[in-house]
Amino acid sequence: MPIVGMVGGGQLARMTAQAAIELGATFRVLAGSPSESAALVTRDVSVGSHLSLADVAGFAAQCDAITFDHEHVPASVLTSLESSGILVRPGSAALRYTQDKLAMREKLSSLGVPCPRFAPVSSAADVESFASGSWPVVLKAVSGGYDGKGVWVCSSASEAASVVAAAESHGISLLAEEFVPFRRELAALIARSPSRQGAAYPVVETVQVEGICREVIAPAPGLPASVAEEAQSLALGIASSLDVIGLLAVELFETSSGGLLVNELAMRPHNSGHWTMDGACTSQFEQHLRAVLDLPLGSPAPSCPGGYTVMANILGGTDSDIYDRYIHVMAADPAVKVHFYGKEIRLGRKIGHVNIAGGPSDSVESLRDRARRAASYLRWGTEDGD
Amino acid sequence: MPIVGMVGGGQLARMTAQAAIELGATFRVLAGSPSESAALVTRDVSVGSHLSLADVAGFAAQCDAITFDHEHVPASVLTSLESSGILVRPGSAALRYTQDKLAMREKLSSLGVPCPRFAPVSSAADVESFASGSWPVVLKAVSGGYDGKGVWVCSSASEAASVVAAAESHGISLLAEEFVPFRRELAALIARSPSRQGAAYPVVETVQVEGICREVIAPAPGLPASVAEEAQSLALGIASSLDVIGLLAVELFETSSGGLLVNELAMRPHNSGHWTMDGACTSQFEQHLRAVLDLPLGSPAPSCPGGYTVMANILGGTDSDIYDRYIHVMAADPAVKVHFYGKEIRLGRKIGHVNIAGGPSDSVESLRDRARRAASYLRWGTEDGD
Repeated sequence: MPIVGMVGGGQLARMTAQAAIELGATFRVLAGSPSESAALVTRDVSVGSHLSLADVAGFAAQCDAITFDHEHVPASVLTSLESSGILVRPGSAALRYTQDKLAMREKLSSLGVPCPRFAPVSSAADVESFASGSWPVVLKAVSGGYDGKGVWVCSSASEAASVVAAAESHGISLLAEEFVPFRRELAALIARSPSRQGAAYPVVETVQVEGICREVIAPAPGLPASVAEEAQSLALGIASSLDVIGLLAVELFETSSGGLLVNELAMRPHNSGHWTMDGACTSQFEQHLRAVLDLPLGSPAPSCPGGYTVMANILGGTDSDIYDRYIHVMAADPAVKVHFYGKEIRLGRKIGHVNIAGGPSDSVESLRDRARRAASYLRWGTEDGD
Repeated sequence: MPIVGMVGGGQLARMTAQAAIELGATFRVLAGSPSESAALVTRDVSVGSHLSLADVAGFAAQCDAITFDHEHVPASVLTSLESSGILVRPGSAALRYTQDKLAMREKLSSLGVPCPRFAPVSSAADVESFASGSWPVVLKAVSGGYDGKGVWVCSSASEAASVVAAAESHGISLLAEEFVPFRRELAALIARSPSRQGAAYPVVETVQVEGICREVIAPAPGLPASVAEEAQSLALGIASSLDVIGLLAVELFETSSGGLLVNELAMRPHNSGHWTMDGACTSQFEQHLRAVLDLPLGSPAPSCPGGYTVMANILGGTDSDIYDRYIHVMAADPAVKVHFYGKEIRLGRKIGHVNIAGGPSDSVESLRDRARRAASYLRWGTEDGD
């Protein structure tokens, strides 16, 4: 059995460790510290920095292939590993588009993939000219943003000017995008292997609050089959054009006219795929490992045809010990599956998620309600929080 | 979050480690060597002997509660831990009945639980008198047997005499039982917590070949609901009477007249419950941890109402490297879930299992066929082996 290494010790690596156990693959983690989420549960942990070529190369030398829990390994480290013959999956040529949103927009546009209108901007005047009188405009950091960080919705030229000034003082490059008045957000999650096999999960609806994913509904309720297939094809096509190996999550806007626009890309297990742990034949974490190891991909079908699965993220509240709440939530609804990441609780931090998988007779509204109540209770000690 | 320790480093501990990750519980293993199945995937491994009070007590001192991957910890060790205040779950008073089959039979009979006729035997004459002309008779080692070891079906007095002689020379005590001409074997798996909550999984059919479990079908096809409920009540009643904490698996004979007789008991995750990893809302491993930690129990309902899940054990064949077969099986049937235990391959050894979970439209015959093909291919390199 091959050895797979994951760079990064967060919750995605932790859940990948779980999947590696049943696959029988040996799994190693390069974590920043021994107390990181994945390091707490993995036997083979190396402690080091993902920014250091020496650390990453030393780690990779013990693995048959390496993959990533995040997109923050510098391109220079990635290409250096590749030129020394290490299997880096996905490779640097693909990962580039998750590290540089301007390059991503330019590449997708050149491929004919529908995207919001965009332009690089380096001054307040650039933003005004991009807006040409139509506000709001979205400003994004070209690299480094996540969970709503690095994204600013500006409703006026003066707001934009202050974002530009602040970005300039921090050396952050910006990109302007049209503000899309979307109906809802969707995500298409697919996997692609070196043997060029592809597998597409059902398209899901994602609910974000202040840029943070709070809820995922699989499959997206009421999405016409033709649109779902379009989203899956789009994701498979992007993966093929960019030579992505492993998972590719494509975050999409469903526009008010029912069309699709690509918002973001991620080339790793993704929050929009956590539902697969309890609702699909093959979890996204197992699927990512299969793809990275060039094993045949598993079935991405829902466990229960005709049923919905709802995921709700558990965010940290103001209390550091929530064990009593954990017991309460389990007692209140024995079908709620709680997944904890072993992280210290901080306000607003993702510390876990709940999944609830239903059969054909469970309404999506009742599943959402149950998932929300559990997540709210874990956060605030009341079922009616946010 | 509490710390749970499991004594024993086999595949049951390995799969429990997987469940502990998502529960957020810290999981420790006491393994006989660092290369044991669970030790390969667990961060907190102690190496020591389950027969040594010092080793087990040293391990238990690092845990909030301890539980077991097998039933071979000596009673003297268990009671000594208990008297020093350690939470031993299940406790020695319950585990006694998994270590001493004669005590188990006597206890169950005193509770009115239907069992095969039995008697302790210490000579060939005892067996002849027990048989009183009606053969075959089953002889069992009072303690230490598993997977068909320690069980002898004797079709004549002379066969019984040689088993008695061999047992005597090894210091093994024997028990005689009537040979039950059963229709099939069933298993009822339940969990019971210190708070006295109980949860019963659907009753399954188990298929044994030469004493080794080869296949499990969940739920048992065509079992009348009244018989299934009787089996579940029987198991819950036994757990309550014996004060079992954690899982209790009750192996049953469905007799030719449709009645139930108790064959064996196990107080730990059990081979007949491996299907729950892919076919039930809560896996047996998570359920065992919940019970041991006195958390509310999870739903034991099938993931997909109206669907069957089939498990087939993967036994070792004659080849030590089966990676090519692994790839073949995944490619041939993307819905087959392969679970490997990280064990060296030896002929006849349980090295993993496959699960295949179906929806209401999948026939149990086709699911069994697919599971068997996968297990056979992994063992022999052909789909038509055994």
